[in-house]
Amino acid sequence: MTTTQTPAPAEAFTTDPLMFGVGARITISVMSDSYVDVILGALNTASPHGLSLTTGDVSTWVGGHEQDVLRYLTDVTSAVAASGHHASVSVHLSRGCPGEVACALPGGAGPRAINAPKGRETGNWVAAEWALYPLGTGTPAALDEAGNPVEPAHMSAIYAAIAATQETGINRGSEHYVTRLEGDLGVVLEQVVAAWTAVGRSVQHVTSHLTLSINSPSHTANNATGNAAPEGAH
Amino acid sequence: MTTTQTPAPAEAFTTDPLMFGVGARITISVMSDSYVDVILGALNTASPHGLSLTTGDVSTWVGGHEQDVLRYLTDVTSAVAASGHHASVSVHLSRGCPGEVACALPGGAGPRAINAPKGRETGNWVAAEWALYPLGTGTPAALDEAGNPVEPAHMSAIYAAIAATQETGINRGSEHYVTRLEGDLGVVLEQVVAAWTAVGRSVQHVTSHLTLSINSPSHTANNATGNAAPEGAH
Repeated sequence: MTTTQTPAPAEAFTTDPLMFGVGARITISVMSDSYVDVILGALNTASPHGLSLTTGDVSTWVGGHEQDVLRYLTDVTSAVAASGHHASVSVHLSRGCPGEVACALPGGAGPRAINAPKGRETGNWVAAEWALYPLGTGTPAALDEAGNPVEPAHMSAIYAAIAATQETGINRGSEHYVTRLEGDLGVVLEQVVAAWTAVGRSVQHVTSHLTLSINSPSHTANNATGNAAPEGAH
Repeated sequence: MTTTQTPAPAEAFTTDPLMFGVGARITISVMSDSYVDVILGALNTASPHGLSLTTGDVSTWVGGHEQDVLRYLTDVTSAVAASGHHASVSVHLSRGCPGEVACALPGGAGPRAINAPKGRETGNWVAAEWALYPLGTGTPAALDEAGNPVEPAHMSAIYAAIAATQETGINRGSEHYVTRLEGDLGVVLEQVVAAWTAVGRSVQHVTSHLTLSINSPSHTANNATGNAAPEGAH
């Protein structure tokens, strides 16, 4: 005889950002001998209002509502940009799976639907590489009656997110495994967070990885046109 | 009337690493005024034998057989470590989806089964955060007859990969969205690549993101024991 447990109501998991595992891990790398001052200065500049925060030796974790996460990311990275030093920042967004590998939430707890968080322009030009992952969706070899692959439903949300970056003018096309973005730091972050939450309207567990290149010497000559040519130094 | 195309044989997609989209994007960030010399020196040290390679302003892409990718990653990062400078390296592994967001390969082209690539110890102690993503698998709310969530089949490969890092002694437990790894740089890379290929035995599209912290000032006192305590500076 088996016993069945009554699951907690879905609202309990989706209304509380921390219970839903909403947050980001941020690794700030400043290519200067004064990196400690720049990093700590940037982390101290941003208000942790509404967020849970843990700073470690590999990354800093912030958990909380998507709007607060976006504000924090924008404040920290614009403070790094304001230092004038070349820096790279890697951002790992996650929602819908508070745990490590296996989700602590039961399947079907989500999705969590929110309005797209609002960002702000920072005046800092950046180049970025972006990946967006809806997890636990689709099947690898689903075929329709004619034997052609069936596109999973969440792909339309991904295409809409890509289209949004094209309309904003920050999309510079696809490279291996990533989409290249260029433009205002705040706009890039806003669009990436918007895409993450948009796909999250139909998928419980969505992660996104973004690598930002800030104040690169290879950007200086091209900031005005936004046509930075890739070159040797990162 | 619809026409059905005869799909190319699966072998064509899975035997050629580049057709299968096997490769990595690497962002090397050296926290020193001499970052350009260290990064270019490391990239020039590693042999590109057997690999396709493109260096950009945000990351360097290498494509090719998993064994060559692991060798290249190990050579580049150990050269960075040998500089003595504090650095962070972000590694984005991908296989089974050569395209940007929508896979260029048809569903069911894979998986690609290979033996776990062999790494080498480098003598450099690192701390790392690791995420592993099987994509296009499972369904969000599959329930068994008793109403309990059904675990997707690929999760057993993930659990085996986690167990392997525990047996090797590099697993330091879970943090938000990631597994923390500590130990020899070459062993960490070998295990992460092994896990990526192991999950790839049953899933076509598998990505993995790894952030390495090398020569951190907060590690110095702890390298002997491997018990680095997280602190403020990255």
